[in-house]
Amino acid sequence: MQNDRFSQQIAFILELDKLKNIYRQTLVLHEDRQENDAEHSFHLAIMAAVLAEHAREEVDILHVMKMVLIHDVVEIDAGDTYCYDTVGNQSKAEREQKAADRIFALLPEDQCREYRGLWDEFEARETAEAKFANALDRIHPMLLNYTKGGISWKKHGIHASQVENRNYGVIEAGSDQIGELAKEIIEAAKSAGMLLED
Amino acid sequence: MQNDRFSQQIAFILELDKLKNIYRQTLVLHEDRQENDAEHSFHLAIMAAVLAEHAREEVDILHVMKMVLIHDVVEIDAGDTYCYDTVGNQSKAEREQKAADRIFALLPEDQCREYRGLWDEFEARETAEAKFANALDRIHPMLLNYTKGGISWKKHGIHASQVENRNYGVIEAGSDQIGELAKEIIEAAKSAGMLLED
Repeated sequence: MQNDRFSQQIAFILELDKLKNIYRQTLVLHEDRQENDAEHSFHLAIMAAVLAEHAREEVDILHVMKMVLIHDVVEIDAGDTYCYDTVGNQSKAEREQKAADRIFALLPEDQCREYRGLWDEFEARETAEAKFANALDRIHPMLLNYTKGGISWKKHGIHASQVENRNYGVIEAGSDQIGELAKEIIEAAKSAGMLLED
Repeated sequence: MQNDRFSQQIAFILELDKLKNIYRQTLVLHEDRQENDAEHSFHLAIMAAVLAEHAREEVDILHVMKMVLIHDVVEIDAGDTYCYDTVGNQSKAEREQKAADRIFALLPEDQCREYRGLWDEFEARETAEAKFANALDRIHPMLLNYTKGGISWKKHGIHASQVENRNYGVIEAGSDQIGELAKEIIEAAKSAGMLLED
């Protein structure tokens, strides 16, 4: 390849192919298999574009889209920890920091700073863009799970209060409208026996 | 759901889940299976962000990212036609127009116009953004195929001239640097026996 900068960028892009093999608990709608991180990130990026008008504060859409595209890259090294796995989640932060150090360093220095910054920003959930991105990240599996009949909630015996406590605050911080959708999904999922009542 | 506009947006987003089940000829790098359109579109979107500086003309990155995220949605109805399948490609344009009519109409009218416009723009390859997006769409399978040892080229008995004739012009119209990469890949693939010599 012609220069180091371009080679580094291509190396980062090839590394991200591994997201296609990191499987989440959520199932895709039209096949009997788990969704992977590349598919999830694709879906969040188009959601960011289509739903941007519903963000609680005005957001820079490009910024949100870049953020959601890279928000899960640390799972290449750290794996996907199911959000209701309390033991796995204790060591998650440290594993993910180490992964971020390695993976973003594949990029040229200026882009390493930019993308690592986006990942840190997503994790901190303080900016308007990070709040909206996190709302999308939380509503997405709820929407798929509910549409698919709650299979993965039922499999893991998840209670409505677990989904509520984990997601409500995060989603509402990013979007009122998406918060309403979350409420409707949980109520409907309870009525349909997809989530356990407390 | 609370209003028609939001419901239409969610319906479009759920429809796009079907891209996770449309399989391309290209294989993913780290599993023995074909890549699907959602994964391909994810990869193009992050490539657009990371490689934007190499576009031949200055591009609006957000515009390119939205375009690559939706460029394959017509395959939900029309299927993936292998690019070297001459018979299948004769009826492709008509099938894809009908698919675009149906799928983008799921969106609210203003967004239907925007996203249908992005798809038409991608297909026409006239704007700086469309040229760059098409260059990414062409280099991506070449990069994966080459990295994976040329399995799908060998399986279909593809000649170097087929890859060249189909891709060179399109890639070079979008990016000099990516055009150089395409040349290097074809030369290396010929030497390694991944592509047939003419």
